[in-house]
Amino acid sequence: MISFESDYITGAHPEILNKLAETNLESLPGYGADKYCESAKLKIAAACCRNVDVELLTGGTQTNAIVIAALLKDYEGVIAAQTGHINAHEAGAVEYAGHKVLPIPGVNGKLEAAAVDKYAAGFYSDASREHMVFPGMVYVSYPTEYGTLYTKRELTDIAAVCRKYDMKLFLDGARLAYGLMSRECDLSLGDLCDLCDVFYIGGTKVGALCGEAVVFPQGNAPRHFFSIIKQHGALLAKGRLTGVQFDALFTDGLYLKIARHANQQAKRLRDIMTRNGLRPYNDSPTNQQFFIIPNEMIKKMEQDVVFETWGCYDEEHTTCRFVTSWATTDDELEALEKVIRGIGS
Amino acid sequence: MISFESDYITGAHPEILNKLAETNLESLPGYGADKYCESAKLKIAAACCRNVDVELLTGGTQTNAIVIAALLKDYEGVIAAQTGHINAHEAGAVEYAGHKVLPIPGVNGKLEAAAVDKYAAGFYSDASREHMVFPGMVYVSYPTEYGTLYTKRELTDIAAVCRKYDMKLFLDGARLAYGLMSRECDLSLGDLCDLCDVFYIGGTKVGALCGEAVVFPQGNAPRHFFSIIKQHGALLAKGRLTGVQFDALFTDGLYLKIARHANQQAKRLRDIMTRNGLRPYNDSPTNQQFFIIPNEMIKKMEQDVVFETWGCYDEEHTTCRFVTSWATTDDELEALEKVIRGIGS
Amino acid sequence: MISFESDYITGAHPEILNKLAETNLESLPGYGADKYCESAKLKIAAACCRNVDVELLTGGTQTNAIVIAALLKDYEGVIAAQTGHINAHEAGAVEYAGHKVLPIPGVNGKLEAAAVDKYAAGFYSDASREHMVFPGMVYVSYPTEYGTLYTKRELTDIAAVCRKYDMKLFLDGARLAYGLMSRECDLSLGDLCDLCDVFYIGGTKVGALCGEAVVFPQGNAPRHFFSIIKQHGALLAKGRLTGVQFDALFTDGLYLKIARHANQQAKRLRDIMTRNGLRPYNDSPTNQQFFIIPNEMIKKMEQDVVFETWGCYDEEHTTCRFVTSWATTDDELEALEKVIRGIGS
Amino acid sequence: MISFESDYITGAHPEILNKLAETNLESLPGYGADKYCESAKLKIAAACCRNVDVELLTGGTQTNAIVIAALLKDYEGVIAAQTGHINAHEAGAVEYAGHKVLPIPGVNGKLEAAAVDKYAAGFYSDASREHMVFPGMVYVSYPTEYGTLYTKRELTDIAAVCRKYDMKLFLDGARLAYGLMSRECDLSLGDLCDLCDVFYIGGTKVGALCGEAVVFPQGNAPRHFFSIIKQHGALLAKGRLTGVQFDALFTDGLYLKIARHANQQAKRLRDIMTRNGLRPYNDSPTNQQFFIIPNEMIKKMEQDVVFETWGCYDEEHTTCRFVTSWATTDDELEALEKVIRGIGS
Repeated sequence: MISFESDYITGAHPEILNKLAETNLESLPGYGADKYCESAKLKIAAACCRNVDVELLTGGTQTNAIVIAALLKDYEGVIAAQTGHINAHEAGAVEYAGHKVLPIPGVNGKLEAAAVDKYAAGFYSDASREHMVFPGMVYVSYPTEYGTLYTKRELTDIAAVCRKYDMKLFLDGARLAYGLMSRECDLSLGDLCDLCDVFYIGGTKVGALCGEAVVFPQGNAPRHFFSIIKQHGALLAKGRLTGVQFDALFTDGLYLKIARHANQQAKRLRDIMTRNGLRPYNDSPTNQQFFIIPNEMIKKMEQDVVFETWGCYDEEHTTCRFVTSWATTDDELEALEKVIRGIGS
Repeated sequence: MISFESDYITGAHPEILNKLAETNLESLPGYGADKYCESAKLKIAAACCRNVDVELLTGGTQTNAIVIAALLKDYEGVIAAQTGHINAHEAGAVEYAGHKVLPIPGVNGKLEAAAVDKYAAGFYSDASREHMVFPGMVYVSYPTEYGTLYTKRELTDIAAVCRKYDMKLFLDGARLAYGLMSRECDLSLGDLCDLCDVFYIGGTKVGALCGEAVVFPQGNAPRHFFSIIKQHGALLAKGRLTGVQFDALFTDGLYLKIARHANQQAKRLRDIMTRNGLRPYNDSPTNQQFFIIPNEMIKKMEQDVVFETWGCYDEEHTTCRFVTSWATTDDELEALEKVIRGIGS
Repeated sequence: MISFESDYITGAHPEILNKLAETNLESLPGYGADKYCESAKLKIAAACCRNVDVELLTGGTQTNAIVIAALLKDYEGVIAAQTGHINAHEAGAVEYAGHKVLPIPGVNGKLEAAAVDKYAAGFYSDASREHMVFPGMVYVSYPTEYGTLYTKRELTDIAAVCRKYDMKLFLDGARLAYGLMSRECDLSLGDLCDLCDVFYIGGTKVGALCGEAVVFPQGNAPRHFFSIIKQHGALLAKGRLTGVQFDALFTDGLYLKIARHANQQAKRLRDIMTRNGLRPYNDSPTNQQFFIIPNEMIKKMEQDVVFETWGCYDEEHTTCRFVTSWATTDDELEALEKVIRGIGS
Repeated sequence: MISFESDYITGAHPEILNKLAETNLESLPGYGADKYCESAKLKIAAACCRNVDVELLTGGTQTNAIVIAALLKDYEGVIAAQTGHINAHEAGAVEYAGHKVLPIPGVNGKLEAAAVDKYAAGFYSDASREHMVFPGMVYVSYPTEYGTLYTKRELTDIAAVCRKYDMKLFLDGARLAYGLMSRECDLSLGDLCDLCDVFYIGGTKVGALCGEAVVFPQGNAPRHFFSIIKQHGALLAKGRLTGVQFDALFTDGLYLKIARHANQQAKRLRDIMTRNGLRPYNDSPTNQQFFIIPNEMIKKMEQDVVFETWGCYDEEHTTCRFVTSWATTDDELEALEKVIRGIGS
C-alpha cells in the first residue's frame, strides 16, 4: 500500500527527530522560555530579514482561532473564501471564539482583491452596517486548499484593499514552504512581512511532528499574547517540543529543502498521472495535486493507493487529491505508475 | 546548575523517544485514526479494567477547558478548591469557554466532602438560586497542586456528594502517576473509574513530550467529542505523536515506573532537606515537595539550584517547591545536599 | 412628513398602553412571576390549542441568540437563508454565542426544502464531516425579511427534512401576526406547533413597546431556561412589562386585529404605488412592501416620506421598502398618493 | 397584603407613564435614534456637568455583562466583592461573556482600597502572573447589595488603586439615586465622572419600567458600542421606550425626587422596626433595610407582609430585607407597624 493521503502521514523529518534526541536530556525551563525556542525565533526573524515577533503554537486550527480572536474586536468578523479552511473545515472554531467568518466566493481557492473590495465597499455603503458584522480581517491561505498560489501582484492588491478599509491581512501558511519553493512563486518571506499583519509558518505539514510559527512582522504581537495562548489551552509545558523542531527546520535551510523535494515529487506525480491519461483538476504548482478520475478507476486504485476523494466532479468522475511530502520516494511514484498502468491495461 | 524546577524540564523518557523514532517512517492516517492511538487506548482501558472511552489531548489546561465545556450545560459552573489549577493558574481558560469556577476553601489543596455538600446544600436552599450559577461539576486534582492525595474514603465521600446533587466528578490527573505510586495511595485506576465521571492520565509531566489521556469510565464520552476537540483547536494532525507516546507509557508499566523513581527521589530529597534543618511545608507523599526556607538562604541556593518560590510564608521565610522526575539522578540529589551544607557552614 | 419606515416607529397600541396604565400601581412580584405573565402565557397556549411552554423576552435578536444557544450543542450550527436576519443583520449575535450560521441561497427570502436536504445530505456524505459544523437547526422567518410567506406545504417539507436529519426547526415570528392574517396564509398557530420545535410570536413589531413570546410547542423548553435567559442579560426585573403587553395582545384578538389592519393598509399602499406606475419588487402579501423606484424619484419622495432603501436594483433604480402598522391611517396613505402624483406631474 | 419585597414591584412612576402616553403616537426612528433618547442623553450629561457619552440599555445584568465585555481584554478579569451582584446573582453572565470575576472579601458589601491594592500587588509580584487572569477592572456597586455607601474618600482611594495598576473602575448604579439622595452621601454625579471610567444610572429600580443609562464620563464609549449592544441582543427596536423614560426621569429632578421619597420611607420603616424591638442587621442609609428577625416572627409576618429573607443569621434568627420605593405610602408603613405590634402582643 502506498499513500499520498497527506503530508502529515509520516513522522518527523529525520533531522528534526535527531535534534529532539540530541537535546532530550538537557534541563530546560518550561513554557517556551528555553534556548531552542529563542534560537528558533531568531532564525525565523533572520529568514524574514525583519525584526519580527514570533510565537510557536501547535496546530493549524488552533493557530487560526487564536490569531483571529486575538486581533479582532468583538464586533468584527473575518473575510475568507468559501473554500477557506476556517470556513469549511475547522468545526466552527472561529465562531466558537465568537467571530463570524464572512465567506465570499473565490476562484481556484483564491480570494480576488476586487471581490474583497466590493464586499467591503458594500458594507460601508450599507445604511444598516451597524447591525452587521464589521469586516476586520481578510484571511488567505498560501498555498490555498487547492494547492494554488497568489502572485505577488494579487497579494499586494489584497493588502491594498485591506489598508483601504482598515482590515488586517492574515495569511495561513500551514503549507507555506511548498508555496515559497514552487516554480511559480514570486513572493519571499520578506514580502509576506511587508504585506501581511500576521502570518504563520506551518511546521506540522512540513516535516515537524507538530508546530506552527506565528509571525507578527512589525513586532506587532498582541499585548500579553502569552496569556492569550494559555487561555486557549495552547501553551505547551515542554515548549522545547516546538522550539527544537523549528530550530532544526530553520537550520541549513531544512524547511525549504523539504518543500523542494515534495514539490519535485509532486511534479513527477503530475507527469505520471497525465501521461497515463488522467486529467488534472487545476494547475497546482505545489505538493497538493488534484485529478479528475473515473469513479470505476478510483475503486480499483484504492486497493493499492491511499488518496483523498475531494468532491463529486460529474456523475462519472470524482476530484481526488494526491499529496507529496519530504518522505515521498521515487519508489512510491514508480509503484503508483505501475498501479495506474495495471488498471488501464 | 541542578534543577528541581519541575517535572517538565527534561524531554521525553528514552523509551518514549525510541518508540517515536522506531515508528517515524511508518505511513499512518492522521487525526488519531492510527494504530498507535488505537493501541494506546486499548492499553489504558486494560489498565483501568473497564470498557472506557479514551481520547488523547495535548496539555493540561487544554484538557481541563475542553472536558469542562463539553460536560457542563451553559448555566452550570464547576466547584474547585481556591488553589485548584483551573481557578488559579489557567489564565481564565474555563471562563473563556463560558463557565464560572466556583471556588471554595480547601485544606492542603484538597476539597472536603462536607464543604462541597454545604455549598451545594446552600445553593439548593437559596430562593434566588435560579439567578446563580448551578454547581454542575466538582473538580479535584490528584495529586493536588500541593502534592497531597485524597484517600479512597475522602474521594468516595466527594463522589457521594456529587451524586446527591447530580454533579459530575472530574479528576485532573496531570500528575496522576505520582499519586498512584505514592506510599500513601489506596486508590487504583479502577477505583477512579468507579468514582469519577471523567478523569485524565497526565503524560506531559510523567515523561512524555506532551499528551494527556482523558478517560470516560462508563464509555460516556460526549457525543461528537472529536468535533469538540477540533473546535477547541486541540486536534493534532499527526495524532500519532500522542498515540505512540501513550502506547509506550502503557507498555511494561513504564508510566508507573517513571513515577516510582520520581517518588523515591522525592523521598530522598525530603530526607536531605530535613536532615539539614529545612522544614517541610506540608506532608506531600508525591514528587512535589515544599519547604519553608529562610529568605537569605534562598538567594544563596539560587546560585546553584533551580526551584520555584511558591509564596511568602512569613516575613523571613518563603515556601519553595522542589520537583523530581524520571530524570532526577542520585548525583543531582548529592549535589543539592552539598549546596545546602555549603550554605549552612 | 409621513413615515412608512417600519412597524416600530410608533409607540404601543392604545389598548396595550391602557393596560399598562391600569395595572401600573399593582404590587407584583418580579422576574416574570406575576399574574399577567401567567395570564399571557395561558392565553398564548389557548391560542395555540396546545400545552406549550411560553417564555417572554424583549427583542428579536436577543430571542434568536438565546433560543439558538439554548437548543444547539456546541458543535452544531444553524442553517439559514443568506438573507435571513440572523445571518445578515444581527451584528454576529449568534456567532458571539459560539455558533456558526450556515447560509444557503434562498428564493424571495425563503429556504427551499430541497436545498436544505441537499446541504444536509452533502454534510452527512462528506468524509470530513467531523471537521465541519454539524447542521443542528434550521432557521426560517415567517414572514421573511422580504415579506413573503411559506405555504403549509413548504413548511411541512422543511420540517420533514429537519426530522430526517435530526435538526431542530426554529421559526422567527418577529412579524408573525402579519403572516397569520395574510390573505395567502394557510398556516395556523396550531400548525406551527406541529411543525416547529420552537417559534416566537413577535410583539415589538406588532404593537407592543417591546417583547417576544417564545413558544416551545411540546412543552419542550430547555431545562433551567430561566437561568439561561438571566445569563444572557435578558431577564426583566419588571417582568410585568412584557406580561401585561402580551396579555393585552392576546385579549379579544388584538394581536390579529393589529395585523389585519396593517395588511389592509399595505394592500392599499401597494395599489396606490402600482396605479401610479411604480413596480413592486416582489409579491409580498404582508405589511412589508417592496418597490423598484427610479433613483431621481426617490430623492424627491424623501422630502415628504420616510422609507428605507433596501438595495441597488439596477443603475437607475433602487429597491425600497414601505411598511405599515396598526398606526397607519388612511390619511397617511392619501398623503402618500398625493406626494407621488405631485412628483409625477 | 403589603409588600416591601423590592423597588421593582410597582410599575412606572406616573410622570414616566404619562410621558410614554403623551408621546405614544409620535412617529420616531428606531434603535435609539429618536429625539427622546437624544434629549435624555443631553439631560444626563447636563446633570453630570461633563461632556459624557451616554447609552441606554434595558437591565442591570445586561448592562454589567456588556460593559465588562466591551472594556476588558480577553485575558482580563474583574475584581469584585464576593457579595457583588456580578459574582453572586447574575447566573454567570460575566463568565458567559468570557471573563473571570475575581472575588475578594468585602466589608458590609464594600470593597476596601487596601484589599484591592493587596490583590493587585500580589498579582504583579507573582512570577506566574502570565498564567493567571489579569485584573483589568474593579467593580463596585453604589449603593451596595447591602444598602451601604462608599464615602468620597473610600471611592477616591479605590480609584487611585485602579490608576496605580491600570485597572478600569466600573460603578454599578442600579440603585444610584438612593445613594445620591442619602443623608450620608458626599458624592455627586460629577464626582463619579471624575473617579470612574464608566458607571450607570439605574432606571428599573428607580421608577422606570426598564432601563439603565451607561455613562462614559470622558466621552470614552468603546468604538462601535452600538454594534456591541446589538450583538448582545440588547438593542431595542423602539429605543424610545428607554429614551422617553430617562427623559422624564431627568426632567425637573424626578430621578432624585423618587429616591428622596424612598429613602425617607426607609428611614421611617427603620424607626418602626427598631422601636418595636427589631434589630437592624447593618447601618444602611438607603432604601434597602436589613433586620435580624426571629424565625417564628417571620412566619407570622409573612401572612400580611411581603419581604425577602436574605440569609441565616443564627439558629433562631434570619436576616431579612425590606425595600421602599417611590410607591411606598405612609399607609403601608402604618399597616406594617400594626402587623408587628399585633405579633408582639
